[in-house]
Amino acid sequence: MEVESLNNEKAPGFFARGWRCLKAKVVDITMNAKKLVKDDPRRVIHSLKVGLALTLVSIIYYYQPLYKSFEVSGIWAVMTVVVVFEFSVGATLGKGINRGVATLLAGALAIGAHHLADLTGQGEPILLGFFVFLQAAISTFMRFFPKIKARYDYGLLIFILTFSFVSVSGFRVDEIIELAHKRVLTILIGGAMCVIISIVVFPVWAGEELHNLIALNMEKLGNFLEGFGDEYFQVPGESKEKKTFLEGYKAVLNSKTSEESLANFAVWEPAHGRFKFRHPWKQYLKIGSLIRECAYRIESLNGCLIADMQGSSEIKSKIREACTSVSKDCGKALKELALAIRTMSQRSSTDSHIKNAKFGAKRLTTLLKSGIWEHIDLLQVIPPVTVASILIDVVNCIEKIAELENELASIANFKQVKPTVSPEKKQEVGSSQSKIHCSHVIITVNDDESSSASSANPNLSGPRNKEDK
Amino acid sequence: MEVESLNNEKAPGFFARGWRCLKAKVVDITMNAKKLVKDDPRRVIHSLKVGLALTLVSIIYYYQPLYKSFEVSGIWAVMTVVVVFEFSVGATLGKGINRGVATLLAGALAIGAHHLADLTGQGEPILLGFFVFLQAAISTFMRFFPKIKARYDYGLLIFILTFSFVSVSGFRVDEIIELAHKRVLTILIGGAMCVIISIVVFPVWAGEELHNLIALNMEKLGNFLEGFGDEYFQVPGESKEKKTFLEGYKAVLNSKTSEESLANFAVWEPAHGRFKFRHPWKQYLKIGSLIRECAYRIESLNGCLIADMQGSSEIKSKIREACTSVSKDCGKALKELALAIRTMSQRSSTDSHIKNAKFGAKRLTTLLKSGIWEHIDLLQVIPPVTVASILIDVVNCIEKIAELENELASIANFKQVKPTVSPEKKQEVGSSQSKIHCSHVIITVNDDESSSASSANPNLSGPRNKEDK
Repeated sequence: MEVESLNNEKAPGFFARGWRCLKAKVVDITMNAKKLVKDDPRRVIHSLKVGLALTLVSIIYYYQPLYKSFEVSGIWAVMTVVVVFEFSVGATLGKGINRGVATLLAGALAIGAHHLADLTGQGEPILLGFFVFLQAAISTFMRFFPKIKARYDYGLLIFILTFSFVSVSGFRVDEIIELAHKRVLTILIGGAMCVIISIVVFPVWAGEELHNLIALNMEKLGNFLEGFGDEYFQVPGESKEKKTFLEGYKAVLNSKTSEESLANFAVWEPAHGRFKFRHPWKQYLKIGSLIRECAYRIESLNGCLIADMQGSSEIKSKIREACTSVSKDCGKALKELALAIRTMSQRSSTDSHIKNAKFGAKRLTTLLKSGIWEHIDLLQVIPPVTVASILIDVVNCIEKIAELENELASIANFKQVKPTVSPEKKQEVGSSQSKIHCSHVIITVNDDESSSASSANPNLSGPRNKEDK
Repeated sequence: MEVESLNNEKAPGFFARGWRCLKAKVVDITMNAKKLVKDDPRRVIHSLKVGLALTLVSIIYYYQPLYKSFEVSGIWAVMTVVVVFEFSVGATLGKGINRGVATLLAGALAIGAHHLADLTGQGEPILLGFFVFLQAAISTFMRFFPKIKARYDYGLLIFILTFSFVSVSGFRVDEIIELAHKRVLTILIGGAMCVIISIVVFPVWAGEELHNLIALNMEKLGNFLEGFGDEYFQVPGESKEKKTFLEGYKAVLNSKTSEESLANFAVWEPAHGRFKFRHPWKQYLKIGSLIRECAYRIESLNGCLIADMQGSSEIKSKIREACTSVSKDCGKALKELALAIRTMSQRSSTDSHIKNAKFGAKRLTTLLKSGIWEHIDLLQVIPPVTVASILIDVVNCIEKIAELENELASIANFKQVKPTVSPEKKQEVGSSQSKIHCSHVIITVNDDESSSASSANPNLSGPRNKEDK
C-alpha cells in the first residue's frame, strides 16, 4: 500500500517537477532578458537595427531589376550585413572598412596570381595551391602582431578568405573579373547599409562609450571613497546596510580589455557630437590605467574594511575626522573629475577639492607624527594607520589622474567653467582648514631611539605632498 | 651660397632620411616578428597549419570528380576553413560545432519558413522579409546574454547568416533542399579538415594552456615573493639591478579575460593528454581569481618597494629576517603549488611551506607586538610595518589558494607524491623555527592608555592564523 502510494506520487511528481523546472527556467530567462534590457535598452534597438538592415538588403533579392544586375552575388550583401553589423558605430565602420579594403586588395592580388598561374599552363593548380598556402600562412602569422590584431584582424581574415575564394574559383569560373566586380559591389552595398543604419538610427558611438566608461569608473571610485570614511569609522553596532556603492569599484579592476577595445573602435569613428575626428582616445586609456591603479589601492582599503581585525578604536577615533575628510575630498575630487569629463569642461572647483585632499593628507601625516599612538599595542595601531597611509597614497594617485585629465582637457579643448563655489562657502572651507591646522600642531616625538630614522626625516612628507616643494 | 648648400643638403637628406626610416621600419618589424616567434614558436606552426588546411580543401575545386559532385558549393569548404580555424583545438572545435549545428538548424527552419511563405502566394516576399527580420532581431538580442555570448556567439551569427541566406535565396533557387544539402556537406568537410589538422598536427589544447597559465601566474607571484624580501630589506647602496622577476606579476593583474576565454574553449575539447573530458576547468577560474586577489596585494608590496619613503632602517633591520622568511616561504609555497598543478601531483612539501609561512606570519605578529617600535617616529614605522601586515595578508591568501588547489586535486585525481624533503632538512627547518620562536618571546606592552584596545586583544591573531583555532 505504501509502496503504491509512493509510486503514485512519483509519477505525477516527475511531470510536475519537470513542468516546474521548465517554468522556473522560462521565468529565469525572462528575468535575465528584462535585466539585460533594463541595464542597457539600446540592446533592443540594436537587435531591431540588425533586423532592419538585413530586411533592407534582402530587397536586392526580391526586387526584380536589382536581382537582374546582381543575380546570386546579391547574397554577399546579406552576408556582409550579418557579419559587419556591430553594436557601436566604430566597430561597424572598422569591420566594414576592413572588409571593403581587404576584399579589394585580395581580389586584385588573386586575379594577378591567377593570371600568373595561367601562364604556366599545366602547373596551374599546383602554383595556385602554393599561392593560397603562402598568403594564408603569412596573413595568419601577421594576425599575431598585437597592433595589427587590434585594428586589422578582421581585414586579414577577409583577405585570406577573398584571396582563396577568387583564386580558387577563378580556376573554374572564367568571368573572374565580373565575379570580383559583383562581389565588391554587393559588399559595398551591404557595408554601406550597416554603416548608414548604425549612424542614422539611434547611433551608439564607441568613443562616447569610452568617454562615459572612464567617467563612470571615476564615479565608482568616488562613491567608494565618499562613503568609505563613514563606513570604516562607524561605531560598531551601527547598521551595516546599503553597502552596494562600496562594491562598484570591483568592476574597475577588470575594465582594461573593454577600454582598449572601445578605444580601438573609436579611432574609426568620424566626428560626432562633442567629439572631433581624432579625439585623443589614447589619453583616455592612460587615464583608465591610472584609475585602475587607484582601484588597486581601494581594493586594499576594502580589505581593511572587511578585515576581522579592526584595531584600536581609540586610534580610530583620533584619526577618524582627518581620514574621513581626506576620503571624502578624494571622492569629491574624483566625482568632479568625472563631471569635468562628462561635461567636457574644466572646473576650478576640482582643483580646490584636490587641494583640500592634499591638505588633509598633510594634516593626517602630521597627526600620525604627533604621537597619538604611544603606549598602544602596535597590532592595534596597524589597521587604522594602514588605512591612513593608503588614503595618503590615494591622494597622490588622484593628483596624477587630475594631471592627465588636465592634459586631456587641453588637447581636447574643454570649456573653462568659472568656480561655482560661493564666496561664503569658500571662506568656510578656508576657515575649517586653518581651524583644523591649529588644533593639530606638530608635536615633536622623543627621538632618543631613532637616530637613523630622524636623519631621514627631511624626506618624510616630501614625496607625498608636492605642495611642500 | 649658404642657402644653396642647405638645399643641397636637404635634397639627399630627404631621401636618405626616407630610406633610413624605411630601413628602421623593416628592422623594427623583423625584430617584432622574431620576438613573436621566440615567445611562442607555435605561432609559426599555426600559420602553416592554416595554409595546409586551406590548400587541402581547395583540392575539392581542383580535383575533377570532387568538383562534379559539389560544383560551386565547394567554396563553402574554403570559407569554413578560413573562419573556423583557430589557434587552439577547443576554439576550433567550438566554432566548428557552432557552425555545423547552427547551419543545420537555421537551414531546416528557413526551409520551413520558405514553405510557409510559399502557401501565401503573392505575399511571399513580405512574409519572408518579416521572418528574416524577426529571427535576426531575436538572435541578435540573444547574443547579449553573457552565457550564450561566451559559448554560442558564433553559432548565433551563423544561424542568422544561414537563415537569411537560405530563405532569401530560396525565393529564386528552386532546388533549395539540394542547396542546403550541399552547403551542409561542404561545411562539414571544411570543419572536419580544420578539426583534424588542429588535433593531429602539433595540437594546441586550450585546456592545457589554461592549466599552464594558472601555474605560470602562480610562479610569477612566487618569483616576486621569493625575491621581495632581499630587495626590500637590502642595504641602500647595494646594486638595484635585475629586477625583471619583480615585474612579472603585473601580467597577472589583467589575466581575467584570457583565463575566461581559455576555459570557454576548453569545455569543447575531448580528453587529451592528462586531461579527461569534463576536466574541472571552472575550478581553474576560481583559483585564477584568487591568484589575482593575491596579485593586488603584491601590487601594494611593489608600491612599498618603489616608494620614496622607506621608513626607519632600524625597524627594517628588526623585522628583516622574519619578513624575508615569510616572503620566501610564501614564494616557495606558491611555486610548489604551481609545480603541483604542472605535474598534477599533490606534494606534502607544499603543506610544509604553507605551515612555515603561517608560522612565520605568527612570528611576525609576535614581533610587531613586542614593542620594537617604541620611541620611533610613527611615520618611520609605517612603511616597514605596512609591508609586514601585507605579507601576513598574503599568507592568508595563499592558504585559500592552497585550499582551492586541494579541491582541484581531489576532483581531478592528482597523484599523491611522498615528501621529498630529506630528514636532515626537515630537522633544520624545525630547529630554525624553534630557535626564532625562542628569541622573540611575547613582550607585554604597557597598556595603560589603551583599555578599549586591549579588550579586543583575544581576536588579535585569530583571523590571520587559523592554526590557533
